Amino acid sequence: MTYQFSDSFDKLAPSAIREILKYSSAYPDIIAFSAGNPAPESFPREEMAKIASDIFTYDAVPALQYGTSEGYAPLRETLAERLAVKKNLECKNNTLVITSGGQQGLELACRVLCSPGDIVLCEDPTFIGALNAFRAAGARTVGVEMDEDGMNPEALERALTKHKRVRMIYLIPNFQNPRGSCTSYARRRALYDIAVRHGVIILEDDPYGEIRFKGENIPPIKSFDTEDCRAVIYCSSFSKLLSAGMRVGYVLAPQEIAAKMVVGKQCEDVHTNMFFQMLCHRFMTEYDFEAHLERVRGIYRHKAEVMQAALGRYMPKGAVSYTNPEGGLFVFCTILNDTDPDVFLRTALARKVAVVPGQVFSPGNNTCYKSFRITYATPSDEQIERGVRILSESVLPL
Amino acid sequence: MTYQFSDSFDKLAPSAIREILKYSSAYPDIIAFSAGNPAPESFPREEMAKIASDIFTYDAVPALQYGTSEGYAPLRETLAERLAVKKNLECKNNTLVITSGGQQGLELACRVLCSPGDIVLCEDPTFIGALNAFRAAGARTVGVEMDEDGMNPEALERALTKHKRVRMIYLIPNFQNPRGSCTSYARRRALYDIAVRHGVIILEDDPYGEIRFKGENIPPIKSFDTEDCRAVIYCSSFSKLLSAGMRVGYVLAPQEIAAKMVVGKQCEDVHTNMFFQMLCHRFMTEYDFEAHLERVRGIYRHKAEVMQAALGRYMPKGAVSYTNPEGGLFVFCTILNDTDPDVFLRTALARKVAVVPGQVFSPGNNTCYKSFRITYATPSDEQIERGVRILSESVLPL
Repeated sequence: MTYQFSDSFDKLAPSAIREILKYSSAYPDIIAFSAGNPAPESFPREEMAKIASDIFTYDAVPALQYGTSEGYAPLRETLAERLAVKKNLECKNNTLVITSGGQQGLELACRVLCSPGDIVLCEDPTFIGALNAFRAAGARTVGVEMDEDGMNPEALERALTKHKRVRMIYLIPNFQNPRGSCTSYARRRALYDIAVRHGVIILEDDPYGEIRFKGENIPPIKSFDTEDCRAVIYCSSFSKLLSAGMRVGYVLAPQEIAAKMVVGKQCEDVHTNMFFQMLCHRFMTEYDFEAHLERVRGIYRHKAEVMQAALGRYMPKGAVSYTNPEGGLFVFCTILNDTDPDVFLRTALARKVAVVPGQVFSPGNNTCYKSFRITYATPSDEQIERGVRILSESVLPL
Repeated sequence: MTYQFSDSFDKLAPSAIREILKYSSAYPDIIAFSAGNPAPESFPREEMAKIASDIFTYDAVPALQYGTSEGYAPLRETLAERLAVKKNLECKNNTLVITSGGQQGLELACRVLCSPGDIVLCEDPTFIGALNAFRAAGARTVGVEMDEDGMNPEALERALTKHKRVRMIYLIPNFQNPRGSCTSYARRRALYDIAVRHGVIILEDDPYGEIRFKGENIPPIKSFDTEDCRAVIYCSSFSKLLSAGMRVGYVLAPQEIAAKMVVGKQCEDVHTNMFFQMLCHRFMTEYDFEAHLERVRGIYRHKAEVMQAALGRYMPKGAVSYTNPEGGLFVFCTILNDTDPDVFLRTALARKVAVVPGQVFSPGNNTCYKSFRITYATPSDEQIERGVRILSESVLPL
């Protein structure tokens, strides 16, 4: 029997990062600068174990039975309160929906808004998981020029004028993946105003916002929404705060859009696993969530410093530029000299250091050829030091 | 701002059952013959609590970290062995993928195979969650006549001749939802041969196969596949065996199709929550899984008998026909006299008994107007007795 696939899946390939990840994890002695995994020491294991035991003892049936697609009501309420207080995200005429990781929020937003052939404008480069989700929904991904302050507003304006079928603008304002950059308040405002003027929805992806370990918080773009103008779908998750493996995220969207996303969620997985929704709720209400986040920030602050110090110490001047993020998980590097990027990647991998080539983050697959992404999240201090040294030795032809 | 939705989501409405469920659960004194929830007493709570504690003590990091999209390897291996032994499902050149509930398997199969406008042939009536998933993927659902032995082969042949864009045939051979019927071996073979002759994939949905409490097991349609002819995608789940709220299901599909489904799964939720994949694996290997299933069957056998006895005792002769299933969760009833089905539903609901109107299960929304589905899974013996009495009083104009 020969198999014929749907138009949108026919050409879709597996995520290059997850393939690299699979490869890396097969060799436990590899230094995985490639992974997007959170630091395992950031998981509050003891507290989670205690909550788990409580749930199985006192609340097992709701944890094991079907729940509503919108999510566990007490978690939705607790989260809504926190978003209002901490991020100035007013939930009026918006609906908060629990998703199976932040990924599902991105994916559902696109399926609900984009018909096949519609366009999603994306920062170039951007998160490959989002690009794949948009493509799987049949949308076309078009890159918009960005700099260290995020998407360029003039370039956005030009793209909106040029392309007639733009349905969504995808932005990661905090500690962008892969660039690590953080978009300024003024730039957020400018991008928002352009989107509203063109009547196009912004999909704001914020998985790393809580992992700011330097500088001042900047309000999310979603906070610019008013009752009369709700132009932003805000996605986030607990993956980098409590656990990635439990798959609990959330979306705050205008209620008309959220209603469609809930229908989509019913179709995809009925609801997010109940047990971990209850666990998140209990962690937020029975433990000191803010103190935990401060501890998590401390972990990443230290690791980021170790990596910056190593980059400063080993990287030959003028050979590679690299970012110095104020939060998140990633450093983005660009080869400035004549080193062939493919040779560099192979050389590093042969010496057991895995990085992600920049091109996989390119919406049009035609930029960032000389760049690569590295993370300090999972390697140990010693691995960071050694890995950066190997990268610095791989960048110059030996 | 006005919102414009994608073609496939524009007209999609939330699942009627989940809306009824929401309504029902708001009134705890309602008898929920409407729910598809498993019996809470079937959850092996004590064993799960013990496993949970073990995982958090000895295996917390893999449970809380990202995993691979295909699923937790030890669970996949254990499941593959059991499917081979118990169901004659040979995994050669097929791939077993863990999904977030059985629902995700159905949904991914359709997204991977069907472009917008393509047709999925379905038993009429069938599972509404599947119908919605197919529609959300842009597919058209076309009903094929069925009887107490499942889909009618001649009607399938006619539908395949009439419609040019059929990409998939959706079947629930064991204890069909909503009809409760079980398709015979001969009928399974006939349907399979027709599908193969037309080169159309069968999506075999088997969430209830393990809940046979009477009669003999019949091999799944997937077991007819050979190395040379792999025409079936087989979907199942742990929802009715261990817990529905944990969202762990699986798919056995030809490897070329499974590879695309894994890409789709990466886009939707990256992977199924790790903790419960590990819990399923430990339950299957460290406890007596077969004895547990036998206990679960006993629970449903008893409940089904209570409902059949009540139906026999209370239903006025000739007013309502009802099925007598050998497994699964559902009894399908059809009003034979002049009672207006809408008046019947409202009368029953006013007396706090919720059932699901048959029409919601109709792929073309044009059959089963005089039918309704009831379940014995969650109500107590006393509620089953009282609920059936109320239904019998609602069926004849008072």
